[in-house]
Amino acid sequence: MPIDFSTVGFLGFDVFGTVVDWRTGIARAAAPFLARHGIEVDPLVFADEWRALYQPSMQKVRAGERPWVKLEVLNRENLETVLSRHDADFGPISDAELVDLNKAWERLDPWPDSLEGLTRLKRHFALGPLSNGHIAGMLNLARFGGLPWDVITGAEVTKSYKPMPQTYLRSADAVGLRPDQVGMVAAHNDDLKAARAAGLRTVFVRRPHEHGPNQTTDLAAKESWDVIAESLTEAADALGCN
Amino acid sequence: MPIDFSTVGFLGFDVFGTVVDWRTGIARAAAPFLARHGIEVDPLVFADEWRALYQPSMQKVRAGERPWVKLEVLNRENLETVLSRHDADFGPISDAELVDLNKAWERLDPWPDSLEGLTRLKRHFALGPLSNGHIAGMLNLARFGGLPWDVITGAEVTKSYKPMPQTYLRSADAVGLRPDQVGMVAAHNDDLKAARAAGLRTVFVRRPHEHGPNQTTDLAAKESWDVIAESLTEAADALGCN
Repeated sequence: MPIDFSTVGFLGFDVFGTVVDWRTGIARAAAPFLARHGIEVDPLVFADEWRALYQPSMQKVRAGERPWVKLEVLNRENLETVLSRHDADFGPISDAELVDLNKAWERLDPWPDSLEGLTRLKRHFALGPLSNGHIAGMLNLARFGGLPWDVITGAEVTKSYKPMPQTYLRSADAVGLRPDQVGMVAAHNDDLKAARAAGLRTVFVRRPHEHGPNQTTDLAAKESWDVIAESLTEAADALGCN
Repeated sequence: MPIDFSTVGFLGFDVFGTVVDWRTGIARAAAPFLARHGIEVDPLVFADEWRALYQPSMQKVRAGERPWVKLEVLNRENLETVLSRHDADFGPISDAELVDLNKAWERLDPWPDSLEGLTRLKRHFALGPLSNGHIAGMLNLARFGGLPWDVITGAEVTKSYKPMPQTYLRSADAVGLRPDQVGMVAAHNDDLKAARAAGLRTVFVRRPHEHGPNQTTDLAAKESWDVIAESLTEAADALGCN
């Protein structure tokens, strides 16, 4: 029997990891850059290292140690940090190359089930990123991968980073709904825990290979989320979206 | 020969009047309400009267006399003002009825050419409202009429009302583009004048019946806008979107 989400009008999505495969996409974009500049690191490892700086960099914003900035800015800073750790010679690296590599976060493939899942979910719900990505990044990613969002909510609209409660609450307000009329869809237990604490409904989509074949995190649902699914198509099934 | 918009990545749309026919839609929603409460006014005139309060109500926000609020709030205040002018008896009118009537602004039909025009323009450009409407209103209007927006920009994202320059400039920034990489599409010369002053490209779509058969404003382009068209499909033709 489908789970009752009849009072839910909007599904907000975590994007990096839940809807798109960032690791493969970042490695794909980094490989020629790393080769060109003689930086000896496996592109997949490089992707992991870059991504590992994501949470700490947002933490300074969450803690109020720096004003809110777009994720694009944090990603760029983190890129330079990772390159420094590999003793990159910044002399021959142009700013245009760094800008372009940073935009790899806007050219990531959806997981194989994402487009069908979103298309089916869109029949019953309004859909949008409820991501830490900035508006332009989410827009470009959607144009790149054909993601059928109705609206873009999340960090830039709310000027806060998940898992701060205001990211969820202000996103719900922006789409004109109460928190309990919004479902959060994510592959990350922490995201859903914060969403539930803010009053949202929760949909866990398992992505056991987001971090590659040896992933150790988020391999299973840690709480009784409203929906627990193996894919966005399975989530659509569970929510009666055929 | 198509006009060269090859450096333009995003088209921002005025919505009320340019993409959707507010006058017919508001009258359609108001008619049963007015009849039920014995308010004797032609629903089309009522729509015109309600709409006439739109600009003055935003002016207080633009002038800094009151903090930014969503258009939904202004529309509701203006609704009560119009009803008062017709000596409506508020006793029997429930809040739910006023909320519902106010949501008529989210249930407006697209002009006959809008869906085809937007669909074709979307092949070459990212599209979004650059409207004074709030995010939820624009979202619901899009779901109602099938408007294929990629993102919602405009007043709520920028916390300012057109024709303030920041509404255009911050919308361009939100989609990650310079002002000259954004085209403003509107049926209103004043909107385009302000957009051009902010550095945007301009597309005029003539809507000679927005205000009914006796319209006196915006019957023609007042400046040499980059594109001047009779419909969104004609605008798509002019921009090489077949």
